[in-house]
Amino acid sequence: MHTALTRLLGITHPVLLAPMGGVSGGKLARAVSEAGGLGLIGAGYGDPDWLAQEMAHCRDCRFGVGFITWALDAQPALLEQALAQSPAAIMFSFGDCAAYIPRVHEAGALAICQVQTVADARRAAEIGADLIVAQGTEGGGHGATRSTFGLVPAVVDAVAPVPVVAAGGVADGRGLAAALMLGASGVLMGTRFYASKEALGLTAAKQAIVHHGGDQTLRTRVFDIVRGYDWGDYTGRVIANRFTQDWHAQEAALADTVDSERQRYQEAVARGDAETAVLFAGEALDLIDEIEPAGEIVARLVAEAVVCLGRNFD
Amino acid sequence: MHTALTRLLGITHPVLLAPMGGVSGGKLARAVSEAGGLGLIGAGYGDPDWLAQEMAHCRDCRFGVGFITWALDAQPALLEQALAQSPAAIMFSFGDCAAYIPRVHEAGALAICQVQTVADARRAAEIGADLIVAQGTEGGGHGATRSTFGLVPAVVDAVAPVPVVAAGGVADGRGLAAALMLGASGVLMGTRFYASKEALGLTAAKQAIVHHGGDQTLRTRVFDIVRGYDWGDYTGRVIANRFTQDWHAQEAALADTVDSERQRYQEAVARGDAETAVLFAGEALDLIDEIEPAGEIVARLVAEAVVCLGRNFD
Repeated sequence: MHTALTRLLGITHPVLLAPMGGVSGGKLARAVSEAGGLGLIGAGYGDPDWLAQEMAHCRDCRFGVGFITWALDAQPALLEQALAQSPAAIMFSFGDCAAYIPRVHEAGALAICQVQTVADARRAAEIGADLIVAQGTEGGGHGATRSTFGLVPAVVDAVAPVPVVAAGGVADGRGLAAALMLGASGVLMGTRFYASKEALGLTAAKQAIVHHGGDQTLRTRVFDIVRGYDWGDYTGRVIANRFTQDWHAQEAALADTVDSERQRYQEAVARGDAETAVLFAGEALDLIDEIEPAGEIVARLVAEAVVCLGRNFD
Repeated sequence: MHTALTRLLGITHPVLLAPMGGVSGGKLARAVSEAGGLGLIGAGYGDPDWLAQEMAHCRDCRFGVGFITWALDAQPALLEQALAQSPAAIMFSFGDCAAYIPRVHEAGALAICQVQTVADARRAAEIGADLIVAQGTEGGGHGATRSTFGLVPAVVDAVAPVPVVAAGGVADGRGLAAALMLGASGVLMGTRFYASKEALGLTAAKQAIVHHGGDQTLRTRVFDIVRGYDWGDYTGRVIANRFTQDWHAQEAALADTVDSERQRYQEAVARGDAETAVLFAGEALDLIDEIEPAGEIVARLVAEAVVCLGRNFD
């Protein structure tokens, strides 16, 4: 399957691994790249030792690194650390990355910008993004309010000829085929790859992905409040659990008691308590039934998409 | 283009008109049906005289009628009134329509259920829906939180072999082609048909659809509060205006002052004040640039979809 994305990145299949913080480590990135896509390591809130360790797993394969732009702003040296390992691409999301793009290009890497609105897509094209990821609200983890189905074609129209990748709600070949119909050049998947053998993160979180459906997710700020992160207007899509039942739509009350709640939260996370710890996941949960090797996920995704695209409606 | 939807309804193109209250009148329904789709008249909150007048425009063409289920519960005689005109289908949304389906079948019509979750889709299949519309949150007007891209394939899997139609975010042939890839048998469109010559509703509202983008819509309860409608958990997607700026996220304060605000609101609506009146619209606004005859919209949609489906990614 050939698209503007496969040509730009020199990959076999139009599939990117979302750089999920604490989940998309070097082994998962490597597995996705070896299967023909491109794996992006998730730099998350920024830990130089962790990043060095994970990039080491990708020493002899193509890979990328994804940053939370507002977190990178606090530790800009992480960009140099990543570029020193010759990644194929650097991805930025959640903030203004204009200042970083010239340096990415100078180092010979591609700049991928993830956006959540048409306005931000236009801005990304203006500042020189080589590839734009249009992320719908159905995606897991942090994001905004617009949905994939209407956002992708609108972004395609707004930024042409810059290629666009669809993110949010994609977990099988039907989603890849649909994304191509909407004008995207490929897909970026998070939750589907979280439920893989190579993903980091708790087994309990992977099992929660397999055992829940999309009706059971919601966007909330409560985990950012209790963890002390300022995500501004972005919220996180999670699987509902006791913590969201207790605090979602009670954000002011949570903020008032955050010191004691934070300690209780951290202790619960340390115990692996899935009814308290954040379980990031997207609405595509319904389409995920098993924890599998990432390479099998990529191969099946592409095979399914080929079948879908070959259907005849005459 | 042939799908389970075209075969079930005996139509040429897999395209349904959303039964928008006060907008999808008989002339618009007729235009969509004559173009090869199926037009559904929107019975809205229920007015027997209006319904009789609009159905009269469809006396010699195939049409359907769409009810707000909780509003029909207050005036169940409207169902008999509709069935007396031999509609091809009756569509139900926003409530439990189990009690009505046997009567629809007895009268020789098909029962279409619109749902917003996988759980409600399963229920619709159990109670005998002939066709299920999976409505994503990006759609205009009332709806819920799940998004089209992940909802459609999940509903398809949950209710097979009942055919599924995608709604929310669809306004061009890319959307129709993508919906087919997700496993849907066609699409239901509202906002795109609102911006048609035959639609009822204010010209100012149609022009607002043409001149705004999807970044400028939001889901809110403020217009239901000021109008005195109890929509329960459902919210309405609208174009942001001064009224939403003043009251969205201030719902309790609006409820406290609703008597005086209602009068102010009604006076503004009577003046055609688009900065106060509700402007229902979906995120697909970005894809709508012109007020056109509905027949041209259908023809272009199908032609574009055929081109998309014929693309080669080898």
